[in-house]
Amino acid sequence: MLLHMSTWSEIEQYLKRCRSIVIPIGSNEQHGPIGLLGTDWMCPEIIAHHAQKTADILVGPTFNIGMAQHHIGFAGTITLRPSTFIAAIGDWVRSLAAHGFEKIFFLNGHGGNIASIEAAFSELYAEASFARRPAGFALKLCNWWDLEGVAALANKQFPTGHGVHATPSEIAVTQWAYPEAIKTADYSPKIANSGPIREAHDFRLRFPDGRMGSDPAQATPEKGGELVMLAAQSLVRELDLFTCESAPA
Amino acid sequence: MLLHMSTWSEIEQYLKRCRSIVIPIGSNEQHGPIGLLGTDWMCPEIIAHHAQKTADILVGPTFNIGMAQHHIGFAGTITLRPSTFIAAIGDWVRSLAAHGFEKIFFLNGHGGNIASIEAAFSELYAEASFARRPAGFALKLCNWWDLEGVAALANKQFPTGHGVHATPSEIAVTQWAYPEAIKTADYSPKIANSGPIREAHDFRLRFPDGRMGSDPAQATPEKGGELVMLAAQSLVRELDLFTCESAPA
Amino acid sequence: MLLHMSTWSEIEQYLKRCRSIVIPIGSNEQHGPIGLLGTDWMCPEIIAHHAQKTADILVGPTFNIGMAQHHIGFAGTITLRPSTFIAAIGDWVRSLAAHGFEKIFFLNGHGGNIASIEAAFSELYAEASFARRPAGFALKLCNWWDLEGVAALANKQFPTGHGVHATPSEIAVTQWAYPEAIKTADYSPKIANSGPIREAHDFRLRFPDGRMGSDPAQATPEKGGELVMLAAQSLVRELDLFTCESAPA
Amino acid sequence: MLLHMSTWSEIEQYLKRCRSIVIPIGSNEQHGPIGLLGTDWMCPEIIAHHAQKTADILVGPTFNIGMAQHHIGFAGTITLRPSTFIAAIGDWVRSLAAHGFEKIFFLNGHGGNIASIEAAFSELYAEASFARRPAGFALKLCNWWDLEGVAALANKQFPTGHGVHATPSEIAVTQWAYPEAIKTADYSPKIANSGPIREAHDFRLRFPDGRMGSDPAQATPEKGGELVMLAAQSLVRELDLFTCESAPA
Amino acid sequence: MLLHMSTWSEIEQYLKRCRSIVIPIGSNEQHGPIGLLGTDWMCPEIIAHHAQKTADILVGPTFNIGMAQHHIGFAGTITLRPSTFIAAIGDWVRSLAAHGFEKIFFLNGHGGNIASIEAAFSELYAEASFARRPAGFALKLCNWWDLEGVAALANKQFPTGHGVHATPSEIAVTQWAYPEAIKTADYSPKIANSGPIREAHDFRLRFPDGRMGSDPAQATPEKGGELVMLAAQSLVRELDLFTCESAPA
Amino acid sequence: MLLHMSTWSEIEQYLKRCRSIVIPIGSNEQHGPIGLLGTDWMCPEIIAHHAQKTADILVGPTFNIGMAQHHIGFAGTITLRPSTFIAAIGDWVRSLAAHGFEKIFFLNGHGGNIASIEAAFSELYAEASFARRPAGFALKLCNWWDLEGVAALANKQFPTGHGVHATPSEIAVTQWAYPEAIKTADYSPKIANSGPIREAHDFRLRFPDGRMGSDPAQATPEKGGELVMLAAQSLVRELDLFTCESAPA
Repeated sequence: MLLHMSTWSEIEQYLKRCRSIVIPIGSNEQHGPIGLLGTDWMCPEIIAHHAQKTADILVGPTFNIGMAQHHIGFAGTITLRPSTFIAAIGDWVRSLAAHGFEKIFFLNGHGGNIASIEAAFSELYAEASFARRPAGFALKLCNWWDLEGVAALANKQFPTGHGVHATPSEIAVTQWAYPEAIKTADYSPKIANSGPIREAHDFRLRFPDGRMGSDPAQATPEKGGELVMLAAQSLVRELDLFTCESAPA
Repeated sequence: MLLHMSTWSEIEQYLKRCRSIVIPIGSNEQHGPIGLLGTDWMCPEIIAHHAQKTADILVGPTFNIGMAQHHIGFAGTITLRPSTFIAAIGDWVRSLAAHGFEKIFFLNGHGGNIASIEAAFSELYAEASFARRPAGFALKLCNWWDLEGVAALANKQFPTGHGVHATPSEIAVTQWAYPEAIKTADYSPKIANSGPIREAHDFRLRFPDGRMGSDPAQATPEKGGELVMLAAQSLVRELDLFTCESAPA
Repeated sequence: MLLHMSTWSEIEQYLKRCRSIVIPIGSNEQHGPIGLLGTDWMCPEIIAHHAQKTADILVGPTFNIGMAQHHIGFAGTITLRPSTFIAAIGDWVRSLAAHGFEKIFFLNGHGGNIASIEAAFSELYAEASFARRPAGFALKLCNWWDLEGVAALANKQFPTGHGVHATPSEIAVTQWAYPEAIKTADYSPKIANSGPIREAHDFRLRFPDGRMGSDPAQATPEKGGELVMLAAQSLVRELDLFTCESAPA
Repeated sequence: MLLHMSTWSEIEQYLKRCRSIVIPIGSNEQHGPIGLLGTDWMCPEIIAHHAQKTADILVGPTFNIGMAQHHIGFAGTITLRPSTFIAAIGDWVRSLAAHGFEKIFFLNGHGGNIASIEAAFSELYAEASFARRPAGFALKLCNWWDLEGVAALANKQFPTGHGVHATPSEIAVTQWAYPEAIKTADYSPKIANSGPIREAHDFRLRFPDGRMGSDPAQATPEKGGELVMLAAQSLVRELDLFTCESAPA
Repeated sequence: MLLHMSTWSEIEQYLKRCRSIVIPIGSNEQHGPIGLLGTDWMCPEIIAHHAQKTADILVGPTFNIGMAQHHIGFAGTITLRPSTFIAAIGDWVRSLAAHGFEKIFFLNGHGGNIASIEAAFSELYAEASFARRPAGFALKLCNWWDLEGVAALANKQFPTGHGVHATPSEIAVTQWAYPEAIKTADYSPKIANSGPIREAHDFRLRFPDGRMGSDPAQATPEKGGELVMLAAQSLVRELDLFTCESAPA
Repeated sequence: MLLHMSTWSEIEQYLKRCRSIVIPIGSNEQHGPIGLLGTDWMCPEIIAHHAQKTADILVGPTFNIGMAQHHIGFAGTITLRPSTFIAAIGDWVRSLAAHGFEKIFFLNGHGGNIASIEAAFSELYAEASFARRPAGFALKLCNWWDLEGVAALANKQFPTGHGVHATPSEIAVTQWAYPEAIKTADYSPKIANSGPIREAHDFRLRFPDGRMGSDPAQATPEKGGELVMLAAQSLVRELDLFTCESAPA
């Protein structure tokens, strides 16, 4: 069930049977020579949308712009500063909590988001902590590649050149969902180099075509489909555990 | 051309021929008994995505959560506070300006966004104004119903009961794009009442099913299709005028 | 009754009979060759102060600096950024609400303020909306030129060359109140040109003497007096309607 | 010369001969049984407006709402939080500095403002300090009662019961300027008690009628006139010293 | 008793017998040719740590970075902007208040901190004031040199050349506590000059070696020891008065 | 070399030979039945101070309050919200960068700080990224338990019951440095349970005595000394690598 494809009274009904929601969250940023700028928000959206076709779970709109300041040196990247990102996640959660959602599950598609999302959670929890009252909601961050079995499958599919940015696995997921948008390009070296992440100027010098440690041409729609199927199943299970988790007494 | 369906080098190429971009911007909020929660961000997205199929324009990701604090009394609404919204628009614009975009066109789908978007523009311009330098970019806000000819068509399609929220025209647009998600419901009175907009508690008392002045059951996918075709054409023309506008000497 | 000319116990007494207050709000910014920098905060102050001589209404201190970033290219303009303006309006309202004021009427003198004031209202309402409680107060923004009959009178007085900034009507109002400060200057063209509003650098290039579409030399103190009399009467009626409006049940 | 009573080109001319400006700054807050709510912004305004009649100095609009959180327990008080106040002073100064003002003199009427105004100055200076560049402007805070000779005169006029809030000297100044608004009331004890300043709830318990250490009924318009004459002269001299002060080499 | 050298259950016990705490607060900034960069946070720490050896008082961790923007022109200075400082003090107090501390005593070592600390107090109190409720805690700022008897002793020890920054008294205190870190250097003039404090660039031009009005070579560990003994005794008394002060009824 | 034990000219000299600095950063929060509240800021301070005795490195003042909102349910915990923490780290870095420090190494002692510190780094880098210029500095976060060899040693010392909060290794470090403050207490179960971290209310219910997965009574000063020696050596090497790292060309 997609929240944005529902009426408010359908959501009101849903809340009578379940207090959980999945929010796909990612980033819009360069993904190397053949990756789409939307890769990181499309991947969790694709997986979550697929999952809700097979189970009675609720998926909200996609939070599509995240923390990607280091990619600004490449055209098309859009980023929020961490402080803006934290404020925006805060308002999403305050909105959902006002309706009675008690378990809010962020399915994340961008490693660079992790620190800011966790900081946003703490910012929200701190309101309750300073006031010495329960928060009334629990927040969970889960990267789609950390869903059970997904990393093992990606490792099997791409034993070398997976890397950490513009990876063949994430590109495969988008190829499966949007085969009309498959891109090709020459690049070298075959496997991109690695290094630290700092500001955009430094990043572009270190990683001239945007890849970090990856050889993305290994991606195929078929492999993407396998990843999506597996991730969607794991998401449903993971969400179920989160939903059923009871508060400490 | 969709930014998120492109690689960074495709956007780099695009920038050599044009410095304009369209950002669909809306809200995720209750839309009465039969309207979808995503109506206000889907409408500009639908129109802009349609337009880019017929002309060489660039459309960015959709800014899908806006200023809808007054709708929080209805399940499923997600809102940013104006201060958060202003900060987020600021970072989107700073990102796009860093790439060299000079004309940034926000195609808006939610009346409640207007004040905050304009305030966000002024917040951005003020940085340049205090520093007594040119901003380097021009920002434009255009509601899709204000595109040339659209209001006249909607008026012809729905001479009574159009209203201002959960209108038959916006619902028709989503019905055309997502016919599988057409909803029906009984409601009364046929035409909802009107009144001022304040906080969510007051809003729900005044507008118990969420409509403001509208009779949305008049919507049909066909009427929606007519609106989309016309709006898309007008958008292309409007964007072209904005692109060609020269700076004052 | 002027709040700042009263003691706190006089205001405490007033609150027993009425919970409404008028706040004149404007801007301090260039007003072309003959307009005073204070025009936009003086006009609502002049009208509101006149109105309180004829009716038992309460007028607060004037909020004299607004959102005028685009005028910073002209000496003497003082502006708040929208974010600062929103914060300041917020604290004014929180202060007044703490005393029990339930209807707070902002009589505005500057078009450039509108978006930020409305955003400020939403920012305030959002606190209540997120908490799912009534706000306890209602806020109203009314431009003095939108008071009943005023635009028609201005149109009759100045059928051509009224324009939108440094207009003969606003200058006439200040001439009536401060005849000792009437200025004269040569300018051309007789009617200034129009165009979009962006940052200050762009603004000064488009509007070299500060006027937008106006021919302000048509102003006279007599016409100003007519406008003040009419606006003051309309203000009293408008405020009375706002005061008497009952909350939805 | 009053900035708001001038045109922008008059200010442009002024800036060719002098780069200094006086900003009256105060607060709108309870002033005991007979003091006006506007006392603290009226006093510096009265003095500065008087001074500019006798010397070629420029006086800006009055910053009329300051930091008075402790007075919120009394009807009619309006306060900014320190963070808002600092932001607003920042934008005033950025505006004035953009025009080339180099010496900005805040004539203050409220003790509770001092900490926030000084913090605002440091906030502004810090921008330059972090960037290791000159600020381009100097800021000065001066309380009107600290102008040369004023405290001595007030002490002679009111040897007992002057106190620190709702003092006879400040009330005398407003009585001189607004004799039509002189208030009377019984109060006891004759001289109010003293104590620390904390939040509004604590303040009202300590100071039930709002006075701190004062016996304001000693005020007369004549004494107020003496204070204004002396303060205005001292202000002109003080401003001249500030204007003539040269930067360190 | 040092909070950071205790377990949480020891603090829980302490709170059953007393609701007061001392927070040493200072700055890390240049202190002239022979003063340590940590002087201003070490002095209150040294005094408070000494005091807690002789009386049952609780001393928290030291707040070691304050408002020193004007010293940034000298290597090693670290500063918070006032807005950051206010936010941080706010969170310290909210934390302590959440545990039930009712009297929070800031023992300050840096004059440049005073305005921001007082603004921070008002920012905290304003939350309660706008909500018309008691704050639940009282805050006190006391500079160590204002503790009873300290200024008189310093005046006796250093009748000339005490000055206001990099003073012999504060350097003597650090010499007593850290004799291994006593520095020597030639400087001239013997007594540094005075002047206003503005941004860092201006400061360094006015005060080339960092001193303001002082001749710090007069410091000796012995004099420092005398100051610490006296200040520690006065602190215990001052804190006791604050602890015993009852709320207004 | 300790920055706060140096004069500004000593730091100016240091900067001529090296542009690196270590900042110990931690948290002041409950550490179970026998751990000190200051454990998390003391550990990196102890290690860094020890390291600077053996090598020519510069260590700054300790950033002693971090992000510990979840521990507020236990007396003595002091926390910054992530937004405050980010702002404060920002000002520390801006200060150090103003002096020419190019490699700023944060030696962290608290897991709960990681997300906010990384978010703070991105917030700082984003300023440069939006402006499309180099940042001029590189930032590194390193937890002391991640220094080479440390985890292996702790694992050998405490093969069971190490846990993740109030661990025997961190308590051992403080016992070595402050043997006079060794605490003892009974607790059960021997090894505390584990679980997710949310707001303080939830945390205290899950972890009643504050421990997470640990059996801290295994700590001894001797083991702490071993950890400190090893960590200090690793820190010097790690810092040297960071210092010598050259910028990408």
